[in-house]
Amino acid sequence: MRFSLAFLAVIAAFAQPPAQQRLVSPEVHTDRTVTFRFRAPNAQKVEVAREGLTQRLALTKDDQGVWSGTSEAWEPDLYGYSFIVDGVPQMDPLDSKIKPNLLNPQSVVHIPGSSDLPWEIRNVPRGSVHHHFYHSTIIGDDRDFYVYTPPNYDGQAKTPYPVLFLLHGFSDDASGWTAVGRAHVIFDNLIASGKAKPMLVVMPLGYGAPEIVAPNANAFRDPELMRRNYERFRDATLNEVMPAVEKTYNVSKDRTQRAIAGLSMGGAESLFTGLGRLDRFAWVGAFSAGGGAPEYDKTYPNLKSEAGEKLKLLWMACGTEDRLIEPNRKFVDWLKSNDIRHTWVETPGAHTWMVWRRYLAEFAPLLFRTAS
Amino acid sequence: MRFSLAFLAVIAAFAQPPAQQRLVSPEVHTDRTVTFRFRAPNAQKVEVAREGLTQRLALTKDDQGVWSGTSEAWEPDLYGYSFIVDGVPQMDPLDSKIKPNLLNPQSVVHIPGSSDLPWEIRNVPRGSVHHHFYHSTIIGDDRDFYVYTPPNYDGQAKTPYPVLFLLHGFSDDASGWTAVGRAHVIFDNLIASGKAKPMLVVMPLGYGAPEIVAPNANAFRDPELMRRNYERFRDATLNEVMPAVEKTYNVSKDRTQRAIAGLSMGGAESLFTGLGRLDRFAWVGAFSAGGGAPEYDKTYPNLKSEAGEKLKLLWMACGTEDRLIEPNRKFVDWLKSNDIRHTWVETPGAHTWMVWRRYLAEFAPLLFRTAS
Repeated sequence: MRFSLAFLAVIAAFAQPPAQQRLVSPEVHTDRTVTFRFRAPNAQKVEVAREGLTQRLALTKDDQGVWSGTSEAWEPDLYGYSFIVDGVPQMDPLDSKIKPNLLNPQSVVHIPGSSDLPWEIRNVPRGSVHHHFYHSTIIGDDRDFYVYTPPNYDGQAKTPYPVLFLLHGFSDDASGWTAVGRAHVIFDNLIASGKAKPMLVVMPLGYGAPEIVAPNANAFRDPELMRRNYERFRDATLNEVMPAVEKTYNVSKDRTQRAIAGLSMGGAESLFTGLGRLDRFAWVGAFSAGGGAPEYDKTYPNLKSEAGEKLKLLWMACGTEDRLIEPNRKFVDWLKSNDIRHTWVETPGAHTWMVWRRYLAEFAPLLFRTAS
Repeated sequence: MRFSLAFLAVIAAFAQPPAQQRLVSPEVHTDRTVTFRFRAPNAQKVEVAREGLTQRLALTKDDQGVWSGTSEAWEPDLYGYSFIVDGVPQMDPLDSKIKPNLLNPQSVVHIPGSSDLPWEIRNVPRGSVHHHFYHSTIIGDDRDFYVYTPPNYDGQAKTPYPVLFLLHGFSDDASGWTAVGRAHVIFDNLIASGKAKPMLVVMPLGYGAPEIVAPNANAFRDPELMRRNYERFRDATLNEVMPAVEKTYNVSKDRTQRAIAGLSMGGAESLFTGLGRLDRFAWVGAFSAGGGAPEYDKTYPNLKSEAGEKLKLLWMACGTEDRLIEPNRKFVDWLKSNDIRHTWVETPGAHTWMVWRRYLAEFAPLLFRTAS
């Protein structure tokens, strides 16, 4: 086939030539430092706030009104960041990588690293991520959930797949664990190396009361609203999402082949839904979750008697720089005092996705092992 | 199950109380006007640039450093917009709805309208959107494509589904047609009302030469690079994406059950791939595409002889305010002079997604009808 230059010339009409050389931001250097650039000719102060760093990176302005600065060398990872422009957080308009969030969307910078890192794409078979939409009669809105299927997923396989329900945190949307957490990449890698069993991962929208993420909701100060949030989330997960998944996919309905885990608010939801319903789940994980209130006896009245027989794994972890470490430790003390078997992991780190990606990579290999 | 207040109190530790009442932007009023707000205490000028409007909305600053302004009443639709802050485009940091784009991500405002509008979610059965990942040996990168399956998709149905390849424009990513174009909602609605046949829609990444979307590539001035872009896109679509889709889904391999359409650069790709390979496609659509070069004889040497027998539909459309209208008209003249049957539609509108959603809703019902 001939590809005429005239045809190309017409196609060229699409292109708007840039008025000036376009700035590049972020620019990741081979030494793992990062240069950020932001044009704001009249701003008085521009800084970069990066996920997991308490200290901001100060930028300086050139005579073209462009603020720039270069970080120290950062560990390979994915980091959310914002420009703080005269005190106001802004996304980087030159960065197409965006961390979706219902209250605080940010830009993302990727420092590439060794292919050993669980979130780096390797030359391995890839699974798929399926986006489903439905009307929730329990919650009363149109909403979505995502399902990861492992590489070479076989809808007709004789042995149905085990399934993990994986929950995002407050202000994330249902895409959080894939778009930010790279859960699909982590599972591809763990499965390819034989570290994790092939499983499906269901990622529902985590709001039982969606009004808690309205801009000025301040819902966490309203116990009745939060009660409804947690209870309706549980009910929609068990009675709407789970049946839809079981109808569409070749997944086990055996409680010993079902896990639930989540981060932050999703960790609290995993404990509430999972530990409260051991007739449906046998494996529970909570990453940087709330926990440890003295009245857990009332929240989980049957846990002490049921756990020994039914709970295959309760895995909890939190970063020592996370302000939720103390409530987590208190909950762990309660578990200990009640002889409820669990794994408790304290790691470096704060309330960040860098921590949660690593937790997922550590937690997933433990699931659905026969020896427990 | 008891839900203790103490447990709720601990969960409340997640919430960071806002230092001050959070601004809301955009605020869509019932009269379809929109108030935008943006905090920038030291900026000299802040405006809103909205997709499809040549005139910007000027904002005014209050004594708190907050710029605000209210639009006229806008027609129900989804609109991309940016704040232009002292000449620099910025996303709205208070708006979680973001239009993904590799060069120019924007915020999105939704003016809700009648449920008759094809992109509004109705109470109808919903299809799903599947995200697939693979390594392209033809193009040499790790990339993705999306597949829409219609409601109640049956992988075992005796009659395989027809399939539309739907291509995004320059600077979009593979999610463009769903995340911005709401193609999945449009198909759900068209199928529910019986206007479109149930079909699969494959949405590949549209770059045969990914370097054309590097920040300062200016690739449209490089004919060799663009030739490679179009040829490799065609080759990857036919030899990698199409076989993967046919292996995974219950789709027809009959050319009369295959369509290809796209917008802007994707329109040019649809013409090049579709009209050049009528052994693989029988239905072709081009929305606001390039076209009309005098050397089409060389690009499509066999089209005149093949079209009468093989081309079921060639549907082209462009907005009269689009600077691509003239090349489109020239191509249509060439089609006429060669007696190649086609449909040519001129509509109001510019080079915008508001136009392309409507084109999809008009084009999709024409596909895979036996009377042609």
